[in-house]
Amino acid sequence: MCTAATYKTKDFYMGRTLDYEFSYGDEITVTPRNYPFHFRHMEELENHYAIIGMAHVADDYPLYYDAVNEKGLGMAGLNFVGNAVYQEIQEGRENVAQFEFIPWILSQCASVEEAKKMLAEMNLVGTVFAPQFPAAQLHWILADKYACITIECVREGLKVYDNPAGVLTNNPPFEQQMFLLNQYMHLSPKQPENHFSEQLPLQTYSRGMGALGLPGDLSSTSRFAKVAFTRAHAVSGDSEAESVSQFFHILGSVDQQRGCCEVAEDKYEITIYTSCWNAQKGIYYYNTYENHQITAVDMHRENLDGTTLARYPLIQKGEIRWQN
Amino acid sequence: MCTAATYKTKDFYMGRTLDYEFSYGDEITVTPRNYPFHFRHMEELENHYAIIGMAHVADDYPLYYDAVNEKGLGMAGLNFVGNAVYQEIQEGRENVAQFEFIPWILSQCASVEEAKKMLAEMNLVGTVFAPQFPAAQLHWILADKYACITIECVREGLKVYDNPAGVLTNNPPFEQQMFLLNQYMHLSPKQPENHFSEQLPLQTYSRGMGALGLPGDLSSTSRFAKVAFTRAHAVSGDSEAESVSQFFHILGSVDQQRGCCEVAEDKYEITIYTSCWNAQKGIYYYNTYENHQITAVDMHRENLDGTTLARYPLIQKGEIRWQN
Amino acid sequence: MCTAATYKTKDFYMGRTLDYEFSYGDEITVTPRNYPFHFRHMEELENHYAIIGMAHVADDYPLYYDAVNEKGLGMAGLNFVGNAVYQEIQEGRENVAQFEFIPWILSQCASVEEAKKMLAEMNLVGTVFAPQFPAAQLHWILADKYACITIECVREGLKVYDNPAGVLTNNPPFEQQMFLLNQYMHLSPKQPENHFSEQLPLQTYSRGMGALGLPGDLSSTSRFAKVAFTRAHAVSGDSEAESVSQFFHILGSVDQQRGCCEVAEDKYEITIYTSCWNAQKGIYYYNTYENHQITAVDMHRENLDGTTLARYPLIQKGEIRWQN
Amino acid sequence: MCTAATYKTKDFYMGRTLDYEFSYGDEITVTPRNYPFHFRHMEELENHYAIIGMAHVADDYPLYYDAVNEKGLGMAGLNFVGNAVYQEIQEGRENVAQFEFIPWILSQCASVEEAKKMLAEMNLVGTVFAPQFPAAQLHWILADKYACITIECVREGLKVYDNPAGVLTNNPPFEQQMFLLNQYMHLSPKQPENHFSEQLPLQTYSRGMGALGLPGDLSSTSRFAKVAFTRAHAVSGDSEAESVSQFFHILGSVDQQRGCCEVAEDKYEITIYTSCWNAQKGIYYYNTYENHQITAVDMHRENLDGTTLARYPLIQKGEIRWQN
Repeated sequence: MCTAATYKTKDFYMGRTLDYEFSYGDEITVTPRNYPFHFRHMEELENHYAIIGMAHVADDYPLYYDAVNEKGLGMAGLNFVGNAVYQEIQEGRENVAQFEFIPWILSQCASVEEAKKMLAEMNLVGTVFAPQFPAAQLHWILADKYACITIECVREGLKVYDNPAGVLTNNPPFEQQMFLLNQYMHLSPKQPENHFSEQLPLQTYSRGMGALGLPGDLSSTSRFAKVAFTRAHAVSGDSEAESVSQFFHILGSVDQQRGCCEVAEDKYEITIYTSCWNAQKGIYYYNTYENHQITAVDMHRENLDGTTLARYPLIQKGEIRWQN
Repeated sequence: MCTAATYKTKDFYMGRTLDYEFSYGDEITVTPRNYPFHFRHMEELENHYAIIGMAHVADDYPLYYDAVNEKGLGMAGLNFVGNAVYQEIQEGRENVAQFEFIPWILSQCASVEEAKKMLAEMNLVGTVFAPQFPAAQLHWILADKYACITIECVREGLKVYDNPAGVLTNNPPFEQQMFLLNQYMHLSPKQPENHFSEQLPLQTYSRGMGALGLPGDLSSTSRFAKVAFTRAHAVSGDSEAESVSQFFHILGSVDQQRGCCEVAEDKYEITIYTSCWNAQKGIYYYNTYENHQITAVDMHRENLDGTTLARYPLIQKGEIRWQN
Repeated sequence: MCTAATYKTKDFYMGRTLDYEFSYGDEITVTPRNYPFHFRHMEELENHYAIIGMAHVADDYPLYYDAVNEKGLGMAGLNFVGNAVYQEIQEGRENVAQFEFIPWILSQCASVEEAKKMLAEMNLVGTVFAPQFPAAQLHWILADKYACITIECVREGLKVYDNPAGVLTNNPPFEQQMFLLNQYMHLSPKQPENHFSEQLPLQTYSRGMGALGLPGDLSSTSRFAKVAFTRAHAVSGDSEAESVSQFFHILGSVDQQRGCCEVAEDKYEITIYTSCWNAQKGIYYYNTYENHQITAVDMHRENLDGTTLARYPLIQKGEIRWQN
Repeated sequence: MCTAATYKTKDFYMGRTLDYEFSYGDEITVTPRNYPFHFRHMEELENHYAIIGMAHVADDYPLYYDAVNEKGLGMAGLNFVGNAVYQEIQEGRENVAQFEFIPWILSQCASVEEAKKMLAEMNLVGTVFAPQFPAAQLHWILADKYACITIECVREGLKVYDNPAGVLTNNPPFEQQMFLLNQYMHLSPKQPENHFSEQLPLQTYSRGMGALGLPGDLSSTSRFAKVAFTRAHAVSGDSEAESVSQFFHILGSVDQQRGCCEVAEDKYEITIYTSCWNAQKGIYYYNTYENHQITAVDMHRENLDGTTLARYPLIQKGEIRWQN
C-alpha cells in the first residue's frame, strides 16, 4: 500500500511512499509544456503547465503515480481497492479517465482552488489505458502550500474532502480514517501524567511514553495514525537540506521493511520508493529500498518548453560513501 | 534512548541507533593492536585485538558507545537509567570501570564464549572517567555470529542473559522486556484469520493486518517489540549491499523523528546516528539524522599494528545525488 | 451511553443496559391490546399487539426505551448524539414521531420482516413529545428470533442495516462500528500461537490470552467490540435460568461502574438498569445498579385485553439473601 | 484464574473472584475460636481468632481459598502457576505448609503489621495436604483497613510487597504487574484532551474515552489493569448496601463469561463465585455464576467459641424476584 504526506517549512513539500511487492518500472518523468496530452474523452491539450513526478511511461504516455507542476500543485494517487467506483461517461461533463486524472489536473490548475472548480465539472471514469490493464482503484491527495484535499470516487459519487491531517494512506475511506484519529486524541510527544491513581507511584520509565497507544504495524489505518502523528509534531530547520531530510524521516516512520508484510508465499510488500518534492522549486527527491541516499531531479534543469518527456530511471542501487 | 540489533545473512551484522537530544561529539574510531590500554584498576594492556566503533574520544581515550573487534565480536552500551547499579571494587576480582567495559571485552575476547569467562571473573565498578562526569547508567548487548547475550549490572549483581531476540533497547530490565513479548505472540506478517465470529463478514481491508497490536510509539518497551518483530521477520538477499540496506531498514523501524519525543521545552530526542557493522569484515557503516546516505569506515584500511587511534568525525551533512 | 444485545438458546433473548448519570423515573410497563395509541401525525390505533418494556410514562403515555411485543419482536433505542437527523413530515408517507417509533413498530409488526415493510413507508420525524423536551437523538436495534437489524436516521435519510453482530452501542454510525470489528478479527477464546518468532520461547503465561487486544474502557466503540466478542462466544445451557443468567453476564461485560466515567464534576455515568426479555414468553427481566438480583415482570400475568397501562416501578434496592 | 481487590468506605471490604472450569465443592466455612488447628510441622493451636471464608473442607479441615478473621484481617490465595516455588523445611524456622498458610496467619494475627512479623520467621513449605494432591501454586493478598501486602514465594525466597493498588490477579510476579501499570498511567475517567494536533478537529464522540487503551480481555495482566483502574476510581455511598454493591461492580469488571476463555475443547473458565467480606463486621457476601443475588453468611450469628466448623454450601441457583 502507500502513504502520502505534506510538510511545510519555508517552502512546501509533499511526497509519498510507494509500497508494493514489485515495480512496474518507474521513472522520474518531466512533461514539458508543449508535450501534447491526448485525452480519451476530451480534446487534446497542446500547451499546459510543466510537470515532474514518478511515472510508468507506456507508449510515450506518463502514467503518473505522483507529481507536481511548475505552479507548485502536487498530487498523488494511492491504492483504494474495494472502495473506488468510477463514474459513467456523461455528456456535458468533462469525462476524465482514471489514468488521466493527475495529468488533467496538474496540466491545467495552478492551485487547489482552481482544481476544485475542475473537479466540480468532471466525471472520473473507468476507461482503461489499454485493454489488458484494469483500472487501478485509487484515491488522491492534492495539495499546494495553501490547501490540501482528498478526492475519492466511490459508489455515491466523486467526493472531495478537506484534509487537515495532510496525510493519506489507503482503506477505509478518508472520513473513516479521520474519525479513527479520535481514538488517538490524547497522544503527545510530552510525557504522560499519572491520572490512573494518585495512590500509585507510577513512573515514566522511558522517554517517549506520551504516545503509548500509537500503532506500529503496517496496516493502512495504523500507518495513517502513525504518520499523522509524526507529521503533526515534526520539527526541523527550514533550510532545503533540513526540510527534505525531515520529510524523509516523516515518511520513514511508515517504511515497510521486507519480510514484515507477506502478501503471498515469499512475496513481501516493501517501500519501493519514497518521494519528496519541493513544490516551489520543482525538485523531485526520492530514495529507494536499496538506495538510502537522497537522489534528485530538478525540473528546471530540463527544457520546459520542449515537446518530449525527459525520463530518469530510478537509481535502485545505493552508493556507499567511504570515509577511508 | 537507543536501540540495538543483530542480523545475519551470509555475514553477521550488528549495530544500533543512538537517540538523544544532543551529541557529545562522536567519531568513528579505530583502536589498533598496539594502542596501550591503561585500565584504572587493572594492568596495562599493550597488545590486543584491534577495534572499530563509535566513540567520544577524550584525552586520547576512546569512550566507545558501540564497537566490534577484528575477531567479529561486537558490543553496544545502551541507556539503563534507574536500573544500573555498579559493583564495589573487590580484591581478587577483575575490577573494570564502566567506561572501560567495551575496551576490556573487545580487546581480549574473540567470541561471546570467551567473553562469558571474563564476565565470570570481573566486577563492573562505577569508577568515573573524570571527576566531572558521573558514570553513565548502561546495559550492554554483546554478540558474535554464534551467540548474543545481554549484560546488566543491577542491585542484585552482574547478570548475563542469553538474548534470542537479538535486540536491546532501554528500561525495564531485559527479562521484563522479553516477558512483554509474550503479549505480542500472535503477531504475524501474514494476514489474520477471522476467529472473532464466523457469523460476521469481517474483512482484511488492508495488507499488513497480521501485526495489528504492534506498538508504534517511541518508548523503550514499544521499540523493543517493534524492532524485535521487524528483525525476526526481516528478509533480504545476502550480498553485502542488500544485507546492510536491510539492517538500516530494521533499525529505521524505530527511528526517532525530531518533534515526536519532547524531553524539555523545544528539546527533542532524535536518532543522532545509526550504525551497522559487518562483524567479519570490520567495516563500520552509519548514517546520521541529516545524512541519509550510508557512510563507511573500513578498519582494514588502517594500520592495525599501529599505536594511535584513527579518528573519523561523523559526516553530519547529507549529499544529494543529482540525476540531472 | 448504552449497550444492547441479543442471545439465542432454545428461546430468543434480547435486552440492553441503560447507562446514564441519572434516571428519569422508569417503570416496567405493559401496554395491553386495547390501550389506544394516539399518534401525532397518524390515525389512532385502537387494537394492537400487547407490549412490555421499560418506559418513562408521561401523561399516561409509555415512552419506551426498550420493549418486546407478544409476538416476540423486540426493539431498543440507544443514544446516537450528533448523528441522528430526523426527517421532515411528508405527505403520502407515514410520519412517525421519534418518541412513537417503538410503539408504532411493536404494536403492528409480528416480525422483523413485517417491520421492514413499514420502515419502507415511513418518515421518522422530529416532532417532540412536549414542548419543553427536545427530541432524543437515538438509533435502534430491532430483532426477533430470525433476524436482527439496526435503524439509523441520519443526514442521508433512514437507513436499515442487517446486524449480524446482534449488538448495538452508540456513536459512530453502525457501519463504522462494524468496520472497526475488522481490527479485532484475530481475537479468540483459545490461546494464541507463537507467530512472532520461532526463535523466541514465548509463553502463554495466563489463560485467556487469545483475546489480548480486546478493549476494556467504556467508550462506545470499545463496548461494541467487547460485547460483540462476549456474545459471539457465549456458551450456556438452554434452560430459562441458564439462558437469562448468561445474558446478564454478556451485558455485564460492559457494565459501567460508578466513578469510571466522569461526565461532570462528581457526576458519573453508571449502568442504571440492565434488561433481558424472553421474546417468546413475554417475560421482562432486569437488575439495577444496586439491585443485583434478577427481577421480573411477566406480561402474561396481566390482562392483555385491557385498556390501561400496567406499571411496575424499578426495584432499586437489592435484597441480601441470608444463609444463616 | 482469579482476581482479588480491597475497597474502603466507612468500613473495609475485600474479596475475590474464583475463576476456573470446575468447582471442587466449596462452602462458606466458619472456624470458631476453639477448633483445634493441627499444623504439620508446628504445634497444635487450640485457641485462636475465629475465621470465616470460602473453603473446600476435607477431613474436617478448612482448605481456605479466601477468608477474614474476627479482627478484620483478610487473605486470599490466587493462582501463580509456574512462579510459585515453596521453601525447604528448615529447623529453627516456623515451617508452614502452603495449604496451612491462610489458617496460620488469620488464626494468630490481628493485623497486617502482626502478620509481617510472623512472615519474617516462617518458611512456606510445599508439604501437601494429601499424597494424591500436588501443592497448589499460589500467591496471596493480605489486608486490613490500614495496609495491604502481597506475598510471593518464588525461587529467590519469600517476598513481601506493599500493594498500593489493592488488587491481585495471577502471573507474572507482582512487581512486574505493578510495572505494567506504568503503561496505563494516562488513563482517566475524564474525557481526553486533544494533544494529537491542534490542526485537527478531533472529537470525543462518546463518553468514557479517557480510558481508551484499558484492556478488556481476560488474561491476568489485563484483568490486573482493568480492576486496578476500576477500583482506583470507584465511587459509592458508604452504607453497607452501597459499599457491598459497589464492590461487586468492581470485581464484576473482570467477570469471566462462559465461552470467552476456552481451556480445553468445550471447557471454559468462568467466574465460579465472587466474594466480598466486610472486615469489621465479619459478614461474608458472595454470588455465583448462576446466582446473581448477593448472598451472605454472618460469622457473628455462629457460636464463635465452639469447636466445630460451621459450613454453608454455596447457593448456586439464582432466585428470580417476581414483581407480578
